[in-house]
Amino acid sequence: MPVFEIHPQLVADCHRLGRFDLCHVLLNQNAALPWFILVPETDVTDLLDLPDEQRNAAINEAAVISQFVRRNLGYPKVNFAAIGNVVPQLHLHVVGRRPDDACWPAPVWGNLTEKATYATSQLDRITELLKRSFGLKAAVDRLTKE
Amino acid sequence: MPVFEIHPQLVADCHRLGRFDLCHVLLNQNAALPWFILVPETDVTDLLDLPDEQRNAAINEAAVISQFVRRNLGYPKVNFAAIGNVVPQLHLHVVGRRPDDACWPAPVWGNLTEKATYATSQLDRITELLKRSFGLKAAVDRLTKE
Repeated sequence: MPVFEIHPQLVADCHRLGRFDLCHVLLNQNAALPWFILVPETDVTDLLDLPDEQRNAAINEAAVISQFVRRNLGYPKVNFAAIGNVVPQLHLHVVGRRPDDACWPAPVWGNLTEKATYATSQLDRITELLKRSFGLKAAVDRLTKE
Repeated sequence: MPVFEIHPQLVADCHRLGRFDLCHVLLNQNAALPWFILVPETDVTDLLDLPDEQRNAAINEAAVISQFVRRNLGYPKVNFAAIGNVVPQLHLHVVGRRPDDACWPAPVWGNLTEKATYATSQLDRITELLKRSFGLKAAVDRLTKE
């Protein structure tokens, strides 16, 4: 079985925080908004083409991130999308939104002009919280797909 | 129980085609792309906040529309999103995409400047196909939420 590799564009754009059972959990490097990206280990490119069980599992994991965004980061609304027109590898956007955010009410894609950077301490805190209370596991790359 | 009403902005922007068990099925009036909008009968505003069973049901219905878009309309890729920053009522975007479409590879939101109109015969054909092969039911408004 081939090794699963996260698309280089996602690797370039994001911090890798860890993984759930199905999805790798990434955080867009732009800290203007909490913009998480989940990458399920699959070759299917469209969310709605996944077999039911995998699709539900991926969305359940997105819902965990959504809870974290709302409870711990103070963003009451979450935008969810699977687009993939530019990066074909299936990835799920889970983006915290609120009326005072950097591009409200526009969707983030193509509209988030403000740039900000996470401090290492912020990344550590987010990762630690996700591990302690939301089941995040260390991002050890597995050698083969399951 | 209050009557469930589709948000007036969605009614203004879309054709109402019918419904599945959970979701009303709408089609954006802009025929430049096949842009379906599913409105589940719920007061929850974020997809990822829906109880698991309802969330899976809503996404299964979105997957049915996705199959229709790919098999019958000739769009091999489908963008899926729940945003709702402007219209707060939960609604799911299921949008057929292909490299020669009107705004590829940009997401449609805010980027679809081309306008086109469905002929009545096109709307009838889409509705008929969805009824015959994809389980769409007539859009009879129910008096009460279930």
